[in-house]
Amino acid sequence: MNWLLPDYLADALPQEAAQVERLRRRALDLFAGHGYELVMPPLVEHLDSLLTGSGQDLTLRTFKLVDQLSGRTLGVRADITPQVARIDAHLLNRDGVVRLCYCDSVLHTLPAAQSANREPIQLGAELYGHAGVEADLETIRLLAATLADLGAPAERIDIGHVGVFAALADAAGLADADEAALLQLLQQKDLPSLRCACADIAEPWRSALLRLPELYGDVAILDRAERELPALPALAAALDALRRLSAAMPELPLSFDLADLHGYNYHNGVVFAAYRRGYAGAIARGGRYDGAGAAFGRARPATGFSLDLRELARLAAPTALPMAVAAPFAEASGSALAQAITALRAAGAVVIEQLPGSPADSRCDRRLSERADGSGQWIIETINRD
Amino acid sequence: MNWLLPDYLADALPQEAAQVERLRRRALDLFAGHGYELVMPPLVEHLDSLLTGSGQDLTLRTFKLVDQLSGRTLGVRADITPQVARIDAHLLNRDGVVRLCYCDSVLHTLPAAQSANREPIQLGAELYGHAGVEADLETIRLLAATLADLGAPAERIDIGHVGVFAALADAAGLADADEAALLQLLQQKDLPSLRCACADIAEPWRSALLRLPELYGDVAILDRAERELPALPALAAALDALRRLSAAMPELPLSFDLADLHGYNYHNGVVFAAYRRGYAGAIARGGRYDGAGAAFGRARPATGFSLDLRELARLAAPTALPMAVAAPFAEASGSALAQAITALRAAGAVVIEQLPGSPADSRCDRRLSERADGSGQWIIETINRD
Repeated sequence: MNWLLPDYLADALPQEAAQVERLRRRALDLFAGHGYELVMPPLVEHLDSLLTGSGQDLTLRTFKLVDQLSGRTLGVRADITPQVARIDAHLLNRDGVVRLCYCDSVLHTLPAAQSANREPIQLGAELYGHAGVEADLETIRLLAATLADLGAPAERIDIGHVGVFAALADAAGLADADEAALLQLLQQKDLPSLRCACADIAEPWRSALLRLPELYGDVAILDRAERELPALPALAAALDALRRLSAAMPELPLSFDLADLHGYNYHNGVVFAAYRRGYAGAIARGGRYDGAGAAFGRARPATGFSLDLRELARLAAPTALPMAVAAPFAEASGSALAQAITALRAAGAVVIEQLPGSPADSRCDRRLSERADGSGQWIIETINRD
Repeated sequence: MNWLLPDYLADALPQEAAQVERLRRRALDLFAGHGYELVMPPLVEHLDSLLTGSGQDLTLRTFKLVDQLSGRTLGVRADITPQVARIDAHLLNRDGVVRLCYCDSVLHTLPAAQSANREPIQLGAELYGHAGVEADLETIRLLAATLADLGAPAERIDIGHVGVFAALADAAGLADADEAALLQLLQQKDLPSLRCACADIAEPWRSALLRLPELYGDVAILDRAERELPALPALAAALDALRRLSAAMPELPLSFDLADLHGYNYHNGVVFAAYRRGYAGAIARGGRYDGAGAAFGRARPATGFSLDLRELARLAAPTALPMAVAAPFAEASGSALAQAITALRAAGAVVIEQLPGSPADSRCDRRLSERADGSGQWIIETINRD
């Protein structure tokens, strides 16, 4: 049973691999057209760099290794975003705006969901150096364009803002530990526990925090939030940012959710997630994580998104595999046959040379044959498979 | 110092990543044109599947992990070839010839050389199901075409045949352990130790084994080998196969080396390696490894090659990064500006929207500007950076 793979890991066979490769190229080309530069951070790093600024969730998901060269603990990346923040902070060290993108495997100790692969192919784009809402706008728009281009347009994009919760927690004078506990309950939409946890918080903050899970829907909920939540400058600024996003992208299926505070705990501004019918979780997530580079010596505004290309490949329309031309095996390099094969391939055709004694590959719908007139010319014929 | 990476691991920054990505696409497209289908095996597998049929070398190079789901030991792949043999043997289970290719990261516990990265990007092609020399020919020709297409043509391709050594070892009646020890000494070209190890072997096998390291050079050494080595059918067949390869590819810089028996010990027929000046090791290696799928339930003829795309990217001419058009930030989706940007990107241009307060990206040599005549049209101007 050597061929059995560990649970929640799988080969991508030709059909799936062709789909992943096609979508990978389309997405990276789209990112390139928007000025996002490709980077490829390593598969493993020192564990403390990989987990900098992230929560317990990522720690548990990360495979650990011992480096034989240094004796230090390494981690196999479970998320590429912190690696790209490190590249922006330290390696590029450019002033101004930096746009980076990536597409590579990550590894999880445990599957994220019942049906998940433990080796997602994380595709993402990150924008550093701009704190204004324009960066959030560019990122959400790029996410929507990516999903549309890959053939799986978002049917709903939920937008939230961690600043709403942060403003209330700050005004209520919550200790960091209490704030983290509340944040987790909100993320899990665990209302009974949330009510317990808020019991000792003073009004009006208590009621405001308990109202957050109800504040979701179309853009009108932003006005409702302004009416029903305490007037705090940071909270008002967050709502204004969301209103501006709504106004700028009327063509997108935006909805708002003031308690949608997902992720690895590193987000701290506008956050968003894209959904499609028939797929339970978000198909892509993103948001602002200003200051993630601080641990690497350079705190910068940052926002971006990522998705699992392996999952997206299952949702998008499948890739048609090209049909092929069967050719006799061309042993000698300079022959007329070898030249005919080279010319066909240069013109974009798939040409499969038949090895002696083997049948034509099932992908072949045409055949390269020598003209019967003794001219030595090679022509293409259709294969009839009756 | 959180930004320091472990030794012998590195980020590919934009220039290098663009180069790797361009070469990756070219190679996979070339493989596709020859009928090779892309597969993507997982990053980790059960250790015993990964190491099936391979030698001690690969075992030491493989990072081990514990699977939290099963308690079993996993390995991070250090070589993709055994994974692809598993796919051919078990998953595809097609009759006849199967052609597969791949391009993904592998991880090594220790660097293979002083300058090596512990995370090579292994690019390769494998051909299953044909035992004849035509398969060796196709593989060597494809390797040469790949290197030429990627801008680093082979300056020498060394070809050997494990059958020469195997025929002598067999005739001499060597025990398996002795044969393995001799093979290793031959691989290392350790002549003094080889002389010691051969001391008890009967003639003419002793002299023949000791002569192997001298048998390298152009095709003439095949005739010399026939004269100087004992007449054994398997040996003669191996020399005939090499002669046929030489005759079929006169345009390639082939040389022959009857003691070049490299690799992870799984090779058992024609083996080859490509070299370029200025690069100490082989830039690509390959050969026949018939029967590698036996451990997965299906022994099949197999041959193929692989190379480290990261290394090749350093040898090939660098990729010119595209220049870009700077555009004002288009906040509203439907504006004339947004439409002009979309049209430019659709035409293949890189358009970078300038976020308020940020200078134009240094990659921009043109600018999208609104016509001064009040027509509302947007035009492209050259940026003068004096």
